[in-house]
Amino acid sequence: MTIDPTLLRAVLDGDYASARAEGRSFVRQPGAVIDEEAPLAEIRDATLRGTRALGETGQPLLPLPPELGGEDEHAGYVAAFEELVASSPSVQIKAGVQYGLFGGAIQHLGNAEQHRAWLVPAARGELLGSFAMTEIGHGSDVAAVGTTATYDPDTEEFVVHTPFRAATKEYIGNAAAHARAAVVFAQLVTRGVNHGVHAFFVPVRTDAGEVLPGVTVEDDGAKGGLRGVDNGRFAFDSVRIPRTHLLDRYGSVAPDGTYSSPIESPGRRFFTMLGTLVQGRVSLDGASTVGAKLGLDIAIRYALERRQFTGAKETEEVVLLDYRRHQRRLMPALARTWANALAHNDLLASFQTVFSGEDDSDEARQLLETQAAGYKALSTWDALDILQECREACGGAGFIAENRLVGLRRDLDVYATFEGDNTVLLQLVGKRLLGDYAAELRHLDIGGVARFIGTQAAEHSLYRSGMANVGRTIGDVFTPALNAKRIRSGKLQEALLESRVEAMVAELAGNLRPAARMPAEKAAALVNENQNLLIETARAYVELRKWQALDRAFRAFRDDHPEAPETTVFRRLRDLHGLSLIDEHLGWHIMYGRLSMNRARQIGPTIDRLCAKLAADALPLVEAFGYGQEHRRATISSGIEKERQDEAREYYRQARARADHPVDEKVLHAERKKAAKKAKSRSTQR
Amino acid sequence: MTIDPTLLRAVLDGDYASARAEGRSFVRQPGAVIDEEAPLAEIRDATLRGTRALGETGQPLLPLPPELGGEDEHAGYVAAFEELVASSPSVQIKAGVQYGLFGGAIQHLGNAEQHRAWLVPAARGELLGSFAMTEIGHGSDVAAVGTTATYDPDTEEFVVHTPFRAATKEYIGNAAAHARAAVVFAQLVTRGVNHGVHAFFVPVRTDAGEVLPGVTVEDDGAKGGLRGVDNGRFAFDSVRIPRTHLLDRYGSVAPDGTYSSPIESPGRRFFTMLGTLVQGRVSLDGASTVGAKLGLDIAIRYALERRQFTGAKETEEVVLLDYRRHQRRLMPALARTWANALAHNDLLASFQTVFSGEDDSDEARQLLETQAAGYKALSTWDALDILQECREACGGAGFIAENRLVGLRRDLDVYATFEGDNTVLLQLVGKRLLGDYAAELRHLDIGGVARFIGTQAAEHSLYRSGMANVGRTIGDVFTPALNAKRIRSGKLQEALLESRVEAMVAELAGNLRPAARMPAEKAAALVNENQNLLIETARAYVELRKWQALDRAFRAFRDDHPEAPETTVFRRLRDLHGLSLIDEHLGWHIMYGRLSMNRARQIGPTIDRLCAKLAADALPLVEAFGYGQEHRRATISSGIEKERQDEAREYYRQARARADHPVDEKVLHAERKKAAKKAKSRSTQR
Repeated sequence: MTIDPTLLRAVLDGDYASARAEGRSFVRQPGAVIDEEAPLAEIRDATLRGTRALGETGQPLLPLPPELGGEDEHAGYVAAFEELVASSPSVQIKAGVQYGLFGGAIQHLGNAEQHRAWLVPAARGELLGSFAMTEIGHGSDVAAVGTTATYDPDTEEFVVHTPFRAATKEYIGNAAAHARAAVVFAQLVTRGVNHGVHAFFVPVRTDAGEVLPGVTVEDDGAKGGLRGVDNGRFAFDSVRIPRTHLLDRYGSVAPDGTYSSPIESPGRRFFTMLGTLVQGRVSLDGASTVGAKLGLDIAIRYALERRQFTGAKETEEVVLLDYRRHQRRLMPALARTWANALAHNDLLASFQTVFSGEDDSDEARQLLETQAAGYKALSTWDALDILQECREACGGAGFIAENRLVGLRRDLDVYATFEGDNTVLLQLVGKRLLGDYAAELRHLDIGGVARFIGTQAAEHSLYRSGMANVGRTIGDVFTPALNAKRIRSGKLQEALLESRVEAMVAELAGNLRPAARMPAEKAAALVNENQNLLIETARAYVELRKWQALDRAFRAFRDDHPEAPETTVFRRLRDLHGLSLIDEHLGWHIMYGRLSMNRARQIGPTIDRLCAKLAADALPLVEAFGYGQEHRRATISSGIEKERQDEAREYYRQARARADHPVDEKVLHAERKKAAKKAKSRSTQR
Repeated sequence: MTIDPTLLRAVLDGDYASARAEGRSFVRQPGAVIDEEAPLAEIRDATLRGTRALGETGQPLLPLPPELGGEDEHAGYVAAFEELVASSPSVQIKAGVQYGLFGGAIQHLGNAEQHRAWLVPAARGELLGSFAMTEIGHGSDVAAVGTTATYDPDTEEFVVHTPFRAATKEYIGNAAAHARAAVVFAQLVTRGVNHGVHAFFVPVRTDAGEVLPGVTVEDDGAKGGLRGVDNGRFAFDSVRIPRTHLLDRYGSVAPDGTYSSPIESPGRRFFTMLGTLVQGRVSLDGASTVGAKLGLDIAIRYALERRQFTGAKETEEVVLLDYRRHQRRLMPALARTWANALAHNDLLASFQTVFSGEDDSDEARQLLETQAAGYKALSTWDALDILQECREACGGAGFIAENRLVGLRRDLDVYATFEGDNTVLLQLVGKRLLGDYAAELRHLDIGGVARFIGTQAAEHSLYRSGMANVGRTIGDVFTPALNAKRIRSGKLQEALLESRVEAMVAELAGNLRPAARMPAEKAAALVNENQNLLIETARAYVELRKWQALDRAFRAFRDDHPEAPETTVFRRLRDLHGLSLIDEHLGWHIMYGRLSMNRARQIGPTIDRLCAKLAADALPLVEAFGYGQEHRRATISSGIEKERQDEAREYYRQARARADHPVDEKVLHAERKKAAKKAKSRSTQR
């Protein structure tokens, strides 16, 4: 069975094939690849050059409106941007700060004049900027930042101020060395009223790079990864900026200090502002999947060449990927990566629909935000787990920097906690699921307890999470006549995954119901008691949605290629991923009567068999990722291991043929033992 | 309930309290702590100074025999050595190479004259050396190394040679910069016979540091961690060494080339030689547990100070460790670390018994080797998981190098694949379990299939793994009258964990039985099909043994302190760990009828409750680890977070008291809504 990787690549790259090709080609741009082990100052400069090189391609203009030279192309830009991980994760993240966060905030929160003044220079990489949201004392709880921007009508200025140490802006990319300006998130105070968090354009350095008066910059120094990104801290000592530096799309201040906003509710306004910044989460979902693909590409190619320990033949060592355990380490990771990639394609499509204005209804926005939060949380964790498995699967070679696995994992580590801590993001998803459930059942006062669930979503809890099938039971597909083959039924997999989400949401809602009638302290405690369940429910939901994306893509492919061997392989990926998810929560499925014990026992062996079958096609499956050695850049994925193995095998082959080749003592030993046994048996016969 | 951490510390440190105190005090030695972010050349030099500083303390002389100035103290030395992780993992590993591997190989494989010539200078850090075992082409399969040492009777020399690229010695600590000599493992060939792998003392550099003729050194350059250790490669081009440079305890060559050995079987000889090097695995088991302790110490202290999101009170943010999810992330990790620490104490005791000669029977040695292999595999993985959870639990702060979590994880990463790849080590354990089972049942020809299980243990498969209780069923403890409280019965936990191991071993043996009568190719395939089960069986066994160590220590403590609050806390740790292990394989326990569905449902909530209770005593539980801020050295574990939080809270307290304090728009908004509602309701009433 010959598998055509290009056919599979078309599925993975989906609607963004040309954007991804563009992003992958960036690796050939001068400055795109940097020496990750260079001294800090050098690698920061190199990363800046890479960031500017991206600006010079014109790519960051894509999401801009046509009147500013853009194409209103959001998803395509993000798809290309994600692929920069293959060039340099540091360049990718610094570019993300510059174009996505700094430029994006100006685009989505600023007015037309501000766009002309700052957005185009930012998108060209000429005006270097920071995105100053997080503070030492407040990470995920952005609404509680301590920085203030108080309006002074006498001078028509805002006074930006850091009132205490914990309000210092922290982990800010571009801050330590390069930013000339920052979009600063601060509590807007005018006429004695705090209107909540708004964004301000604050110059921080002169063109020559000198820090401006009143601004204090500290360097975060060495980090766990992303060494090329100059993270740092900003503190402001009553820094004055013109009134017109407020990015005022969702809230403006008149010269006399009067505040006005197109959105009446301060809570809704806040979440609308933050919602415009969802691109960061969308792109991390994709970028982490690119990281996982690269890791698997390296580890699987190595596993197809590397040999260790002899097998049936004394002189023939076994290729790593022929070991069943090795298959079991890498094949489920491969299937999961396919699910993440295909779910991400759906996310990109939603993103484009909302941001192009095709459908920017509240419902569409909120579904996008929920899915971006949940998908990002799981795929960033998956990338870390997969890269670690890949690094260990390559043994000591995996630990050497030149083989890239440790570097990729190191750089992607922070994904789990930035652009929203994963734990917080899953709570946001869980809460929205609860809201949906409440809306459907109309008997659950969840709004009253919502504020005790510590997420950004304090206001929006009631809307669609896309769980259209909740309520369908597995009875339809799970009959007693189910045979061994049926364990691979897609409908069964979906029913099991779906019924788990449904049951968990119902349990959660039931547990929380009394909170609505409780005093605050008790209600908060009850919600807290259910926090773990809330998060696990969100995880189950995201797992379901991603599996569904994989399944949908599989079915579409099967319809187009009913007899193709690629369809068989694709189905194996779908089944392996589905059964792996069920296996992870096997206890649950049995405990809640969804799966009989006898059938549950089939799952492990079925997973083993699927792994073995997929391993036979592992090469085309990673070729489908679309990377070349210029992207992998690992010594062990270059074919060098096969050369070395061939050289060693040829050496032994020739050596064995020589008359003076030393005989193994263990062979002599075995012969002696045999002879002694014979002699003994002869003497006994006499 | 006030918990006395010193009482718990005495349990954790066990018989090695003074040795551990000594190891912890090394942090105050000049040179012990190094700048982990310095340029490569600098950090290598600093690491060498730290390694020499350890030599100057005289510690590395401890394991030597009294006639060489030592005290025959093996376990105490290892216990102190493990604690060096708190000073610098790079210094620890470089010292491990110098004193444990290089010195240890000379001690255990060399003769008295060699001890005088090389061992004492090595133990003093004067003669710097490498341990050159691994090759590019052979990691865990040491028996297959390609380097040869061919005896030349004319000159009475061995010719050490690297015949092809894959036979180059690789990942060798001290090789890139500092080693003057190396213990090189090579196939000993004399008189036309290959006697298998032996160790040779090979000078590689002059005293001045110049590489000797015929030796090629390459630098491994940057790695995933342990930046201070100068890993590199050695290749030998027919390098001649005197006959007396063979470390000849287990095999010697007479001047005329005649080979002799005290151990007749070449296989047994090989494993005896390797067995003397078990110290490396023992010390990694302990060192990884030190790493996990430090991570938890940092993350838990931070979680006790850090606040995020308001709870019941609008103005009061909640401390991280009060969140149930946060408890669930850190408390099971704490309990697991206790289990690992207490199991490690048992391992140290076995190590001392065997290496002091008190009981160095084959049985004692083999049990030690099995447990060192299994314990090291699981505790090194645990350390990585725990350090990652700790890093994420500290959010962005966890990613900054100065908070140490990323550095510790990075440095310990390689533990999973060095001194025996964890996957290979677990196969070794699994195979020995099978051997035991075969020996007990006497009807299973496992010897015949053993060679297809690719581990170092090709010869020894039949001996004691210490599973004395296998065969006991859980019927004794698991009665239908079991109530909710009984889910916390230690006997039940043990019976569940034990019966799982027993069932898995029996299943494995049953699956493999046909292999003995199969042709080689089929037998190898059958063994391969069961590889995953073999490894999971080994894991289950090690989990059981470690839980038993925790349980034994708990029961001994309870006997001594029946009424102490520390006993209550200790029991919670035991139960949390036991139930977490059962929860991980919940599907199995239900599927195989060990646990009813109803009872299985109690496990999750019981774990949640135990986490909450333990979180209340989290501080004394980490204080029990015995580290000070000089060991943690994380900014966030210094108390600075509390200072910042206090400052911010005081700021808001004072601000709220001021008349001109801006009122929140959301408060005004809520009041307006309320008023409008009232007005509406009044107009409706009319």
